[in-house]
Amino acid sequence: MAERVQQVVAVMGRGVVDTGAPVATGDDLGLTRGDGCFDATLVAWDGEGWLVHDLDEHLERLRRSADALGIPLADDDAWIELVGDALQVWQGADEAALKMVLTRGDEHGDGTPLAFLTLTAVDAGMQAQRDGIRVVTLSRGYASDAFEGAPWLLGGVKLLSYAVHVAAKREASARGAEDVIFTSSDGCLLEAPTSAVVWLRDGVVATTPTGATGILDSISARKILGGAAEHGWRAERRLVTPDELAEADAAWLVSSVRGVAPITELDGRALRTDPEATRIVRALNGF
Amino acid sequence: MAERVQQVVAVMGRGVVDTGAPVATGDDLGLTRGDGCFDATLVAWDGEGWLVHDLDEHLERLRRSADALGIPLADDDAWIELVGDALQVWQGADEAALKMVLTRGDEHGDGTPLAFLTLTAVDAGMQAQRDGIRVVTLSRGYASDAFEGAPWLLGGVKLLSYAVHVAAKREASARGAEDVIFTSSDGCLLEAPTSAVVWLRDGVVATTPTGATGILDSISARKILGGAAEHGWRAERRLVTPDELAEADAAWLVSSVRGVAPITELDGRALRTDPEATRIVRALNGF
Repeated sequence: MAERVQQVVAVMGRGVVDTGAPVATGDDLGLTRGDGCFDATLVAWDGEGWLVHDLDEHLERLRRSADALGIPLADDDAWIELVGDALQVWQGADEAALKMVLTRGDEHGDGTPLAFLTLTAVDAGMQAQRDGIRVVTLSRGYASDAFEGAPWLLGGVKLLSYAVHVAAKREASARGAEDVIFTSSDGCLLEAPTSAVVWLRDGVVATTPTGATGILDSISARKILGGAAEHGWRAERRLVTPDELAEADAAWLVSSVRGVAPITELDGRALRTDPEATRIVRALNGF
Repeated sequence: MAERVQQVVAVMGRGVVDTGAPVATGDDLGLTRGDGCFDATLVAWDGEGWLVHDLDEHLERLRRSADALGIPLADDDAWIELVGDALQVWQGADEAALKMVLTRGDEHGDGTPLAFLTLTAVDAGMQAQRDGIRVVTLSRGYASDAFEGAPWLLGGVKLLSYAVHVAAKREASARGAEDVIFTSSDGCLLEAPTSAVVWLRDGVVATTPTGATGILDSISARKILGGAAEHGWRAERRLVTPDELAEADAAWLVSSVRGVAPITELDGRALRTDPEATRIVRALNGF
C-alpha cells in the first residue's frame, strides 16, 4: 500500500475501513449499472482544525440526487458523524477531496443501499489549474432542452454514471487542454464534466441555466452569483455560444474541490483574464 | 446469505470468491464513475453440460468496449478459464445470466483494472417475458446522428454507466409496461435499455443501425438477420418511427439473456404477433 495516494475510506454503518479494502460486491448496482449518485467538496486545514466547505449544501444536493433516483439516504447527522470519523484518522495533506457516494445496493439483495465516503489528498496538478486552464468544447449530443419532461434522463442528478464525462476529459488531454465545456446540439455551452462555467461581461456575472438543459445545480456558481450584488455586479443565468464566451471580460470553471480556475484558452483561442475579478470570484466562492 | 438469489462471483486473478464478498474498493473508477464496460450472455443446462451461448462473440464485443475505453482486458483464455471455475461451483437453476465486468480499477492505484464475473439465476419474471411484453417509447434525448464524429460519447460501448437505462425501465413499470424502446429527438426508434428491436414486415426482417445512432451492436440481432435468408427473408438495418413499427407483421425485443420477447403492445397500442415467425426468430437466435 506504500505507493497509494493518501486516502481514507469510511462506510456507513461500519466506520473507517482499511484503505484499499473492497467495499462493493460484484452484485452492487452502483458498480454494475452506475446506478447511484455522489457529491464532493473540499476539506481544508484552516490552521486550527479541518474545515469542510459547505457540507450542508452538499448533503442537501446529495439528498436531491438520491430522491431523483429513489434511493434512501442516511440522515445528515449520520453523514456528519462519518465525516468526523474519517477526519479523525486523516494524516494527509492540508487539502483533501471529500467524496460521498450512494449506490442502490445489491441487485439481488434486500434493498439496503451502500453509502461510503473517501477522503483523498488534492493533487498538485489540480491545484496548479487554479492558475489557469485551457479548455476545449465537445458536443454532449443533447439539445439544450432535451431534459424537459424526461425525468428518466436524470438531468441535474450527480450520477455515478459518469463514463462520458471521464472520456471527454481524456479527449481534452489528447487535444492539449486540461478541461472541457460540453456544448448542446443547438450550439450552446452547457457545463464542464465536473465544473460549472461562470463568466463576467459588462458587470454581469453569469452561468448556464439548470432545468431543461440537464445541467447540475452548481453550489460554487450559486455562491458566486448569490454574492454578486455586494460587488456591484448583476447576476443572471443564460445560454451562450462559444463565440459569446470568447467575448467575456473573464471566464472561469468553478467546482467544489478545484475551486475557481480561470479559463485562459477556449478551443485554442486566448480568452481575457481579469485577476481582480478572479480575486472577487474566489472570495465569493470561499477559496 | 440464505435469502440471496443463487449467485456465483469470480474475480480475475483470484477465482471464485464468497458470494456477497465485496470486490471493488471505494476508489474503483467503475464504482465512482461508471468507468468500465460489461457484457452478458445466457448459460443453460443442455442435459449433459452447461452451454455458454456465444461466448466468443461476447468476449469479442467486450474487447471492443474495453478498447474504446482504453482499458486493458485479459485474454480470452483467462476469461474462459474463469467462466469454467464459476460453472464448477454453480449449483443454481438451469438458466443463469453470465455477466463479465471490467472497470478501469482504482483511481489512485497502479492502473490495474478490476475484472470479474457473476453467474446469477434467471428469474421467472424475465422468463415470462418471452411470452410477450408491453413496451413504451421514451426519449433518449439524442438525435439519431448524435454520435457521428464524437467518440467521447462512447456510442456502441456497453458501459457500466447505465443509470439512465435503469431509470427508463422504472418509468416503464410506472406506466404499466415491462420494457422501453428509446426514441431519438428526431422521432426514430433506437434500441431498448438492454435489448435490440427486430421486426418483420412483408418478408423483410430488420433492426436499427449502429454507428452514428450510438446503438449497441446486438449479437442477437446479428444472428437473426444473418440467418434470415435461409427462411426466405431479406435483412436490413434502418431507422423507423413508432408508427412504422406498429405496422409490422411482428416485432420483438431481442437480447442475450432474455432471448426473444414478442412485443404485444407499444405505447398502449396492440401490435400484431406471429407465432410462426417468432418460432423462426427463436431458432435463429439459438433459443
